[in-house]
Amino acid sequence: MVYVTRREVFSAAHRLFNPDLSDAENDALYDKCNNPNGHGHNYVLEVVVAGEIDPVTGYVVDLKKLKDIIREHIIRKADHKHLNLDVDFMKGIIPTAENIAVAVWNQLVDKIPSGRLFSVRIKETENNYAEYRGE
Amino acid sequence: MVYVTRREVFSAAHRLFNPDLSDAENDALYDKCNNPNGHGHNYVLEVVVAGEIDPVTGYVVDLKKLKDIIREHIIRKADHKHLNLDVDFMKGIIPTAENIAVAVWNQLVDKIPSGRLFSVRIKETENNYAEYRGE
Amino acid sequence: MVYVTRREVFSAAHRLFNPDLSDAENDALYDKCNNPNGHGHNYVLEVVVAGEIDPVTGYVVDLKKLKDIIREHIIRKADHKHLNLDVDFMKGIIPTAENIAVAVWNQLVDKIPSGRLFSVRIKETENNYAEYRGE
Amino acid sequence: MVYVTRREVFSAAHRLFNPDLSDAENDALYDKCNNPNGHGHNYVLEVVVAGEIDPVTGYVVDLKKLKDIIREHIIRKADHKHLNLDVDFMKGIIPTAENIAVAVWNQLVDKIPSGRLFSVRIKETENNYAEYRGE
Amino acid sequence: MVYVTRREVFSAAHRLFNPDLSDAENDALYDKCNNPNGHGHNYVLEVVVAGEIDPVTGYVVDLKKLKDIIREHIIRKADHKHLNLDVDFMKGIIPTAENIAVAVWNQLVDKIPSGRLFSVRIKETENNYAEYRGE
Amino acid sequence: MVYVTRREVFSAAHRLFNPDLSDAENDALYDKCNNPNGHGHNYVLEVVVAGEIDPVTGYVVDLKKLKDIIREHIIRKADHKHLNLDVDFMKGIIPTAENIAVAVWNQLVDKIPSGRLFSVRIKETENNYAEYRGE
Repeated sequence: MVYVTRREVFSAAHRLFNPDLSDAENDALYDKCNNPNGHGHNYVLEVVVAGEIDPVTGYVVDLKKLKDIIREHIIRKADHKHLNLDVDFMKGIIPTAENIAVAVWNQLVDKIPSGRLFSVRIKETENNYAEYRGE
Repeated sequence: MVYVTRREVFSAAHRLFNPDLSDAENDALYDKCNNPNGHGHNYVLEVVVAGEIDPVTGYVVDLKKLKDIIREHIIRKADHKHLNLDVDFMKGIIPTAENIAVAVWNQLVDKIPSGRLFSVRIKETENNYAEYRGE
Repeated sequence: MVYVTRREVFSAAHRLFNPDLSDAENDALYDKCNNPNGHGHNYVLEVVVAGEIDPVTGYVVDLKKLKDIIREHIIRKADHKHLNLDVDFMKGIIPTAENIAVAVWNQLVDKIPSGRLFSVRIKETENNYAEYRGE
Repeated sequence: MVYVTRREVFSAAHRLFNPDLSDAENDALYDKCNNPNGHGHNYVLEVVVAGEIDPVTGYVVDLKKLKDIIREHIIRKADHKHLNLDVDFMKGIIPTAENIAVAVWNQLVDKIPSGRLFSVRIKETENNYAEYRGE
Repeated sequence: MVYVTRREVFSAAHRLFNPDLSDAENDALYDKCNNPNGHGHNYVLEVVVAGEIDPVTGYVVDLKKLKDIIREHIIRKADHKHLNLDVDFMKGIIPTAENIAVAVWNQLVDKIPSGRLFSVRIKETENNYAEYRGE
Repeated sequence: MVYVTRREVFSAAHRLFNPDLSDAENDALYDKCNNPNGHGHNYVLEVVVAGEIDPVTGYVVDLKKLKDIIREHIIRKADHKHLNLDVDFMKGIIPTAENIAVAVWNQLVDKIPSGRLFSVRIKETENNYAEYRGE
């Protein structure tokens, strides 16, 4: 079993806001992350695939193919977009790093050509990250 | 003459859009950076002050004071905000990295307690930066 | 289950020295790390909390609160200090990266407001790290 | 149980090529990585050792000793070399990141002076990594 | 005057070798960098363009266009190649970081669509860089 | 003219303290940097040499030789040391980043084997740097 990782970056706006809560509750909960006009990040996405090495190729998964899959299903949709307003796989989801990691997992889990999806990591800033392993 | 640098980070949304141009012109010019709902970045700001070392303190400028000045005049206003909509010193300015660097320079140039402002650098992504030296 | 991480940095001096050993033994064991006047590092601390996402907030744990907890219990005590001489939670502990990781764990393990402490990582230099998971 | 990591870097050339496949198959499989004259990387190697902290030393393993072992068995052989042509522990192995991680593991697994080898990570570029844990 | 930078990465093999010198002289001069089968690096290239901000666009130069120019004239030719053997703009040039920086400058200097080429930086490793400013 | 840079890292303790000032003045001036037992950093040192490329070698200066010079005159003396107490070239100098940069310059300026010393940069933390160019 070997774990291979592909790293991609996308730049997106978002706003932390729960429509089921009052404005005061949203402010208390999310503070500056609740700015009505939004703010943004360069999100660093790491996708980890686990599997056995194919003896013919030496690959668990061809990282060029994994890159193409991530770009088609995640980067093309989220890069230079507003996560709350523009991204189909985030519709109705509060765009915390935790929820983005789970949403990316759900987009990718059945599209990995060999091996299996092991982990999705989202670094929102250099100080804050989230990781989901499908557990 | 010694150059000292303070690095700060702020997370903001922006949209590249020139209101004097048509939508088609804006699209042609800014492409995905013109997304109407905006996108965002973790902006890395580096402020460089040049001056002689004070023999009593060993400092060109006390970086704790420089940090406080940057935070009061730039970070407090721009962090977790939308640069086009929320930030007084960006009003009426197309928020390219170039223009942000100049605007930050203009905010800080008369507030440096010792030495003189030498350079303002803005890293919009890990691949794109702008620097202004007041030239 | 999602894993969220908060990264903080503190700058501290330390000396590797075991008072139960002779000077010669300390020298043989710790070499340059045993300099009597100490040396120092910018320690990078990563604190990982594991838990389920709260559907109301989208958070495993509010990273702003986690930041405040780390700053109160670790950074305030260790930043710009000498780990052997100034830091209560390191008293009587040889300040290797391994021992710092365990000591930080012990400080934080019962103070996590939601989820549970999963891992504490200490990067002493860009080349040397330690991680403790409470195992 | 604590996990300690030593990071080293080596600069090497390689070519992805399976001698059991035709040139056309190699091209289809490895694309630009199959350039006959090779290409190269600054490989970042992270070696993780797991074990209990020795109460006398405060170490799981003395990272100075681990560094020396990695340099003798890996860096000295692979740094500034061609992985396909010059490196004994890569002979007959397609030098994908996955296979390098396994080969490094096999070189080091019986040479760890205390604790046990837990993980070998190879970062081929800032975007592509592989990790092997002996599973 | 504002300075804008675009960063790109390419992975290439090279060998330091001067055909006008004897093998012994090459060995004495270049040591391990003279390995006959070559070695390699992830070269980080930074291209800096200086100019005035266009008031209509807010750009010194459109970094998307600069990226395309760098990719067409440098990355496409050098990435996943052997600098001594495969790259037209390096033919007959000893591929030190210094010489690569000058060669990249010469490729790009007359292709900058607005502003003027100010600097080319090549980071060969995390510890060794070269910069050329056309001086 | 080409600029080449060698990066080295050293880990040292220091205390900001001016013996000509009272304790209260030192506290007011240096705040937490004045901790009597000191604190420490992983100092990143960048040494820049400017010169013409030697057509025989392709080098401005052989970076292996520059590395050896930096290690002999700076790293050997300052790494794993206390800058106020252990380092000859810092005796009587308040160890601010500014003063360290100047002191390193003075150590190296007459030892550069080809080209001339152009700049010395000291990164004390990821947020605070100083640079001296002999001006």
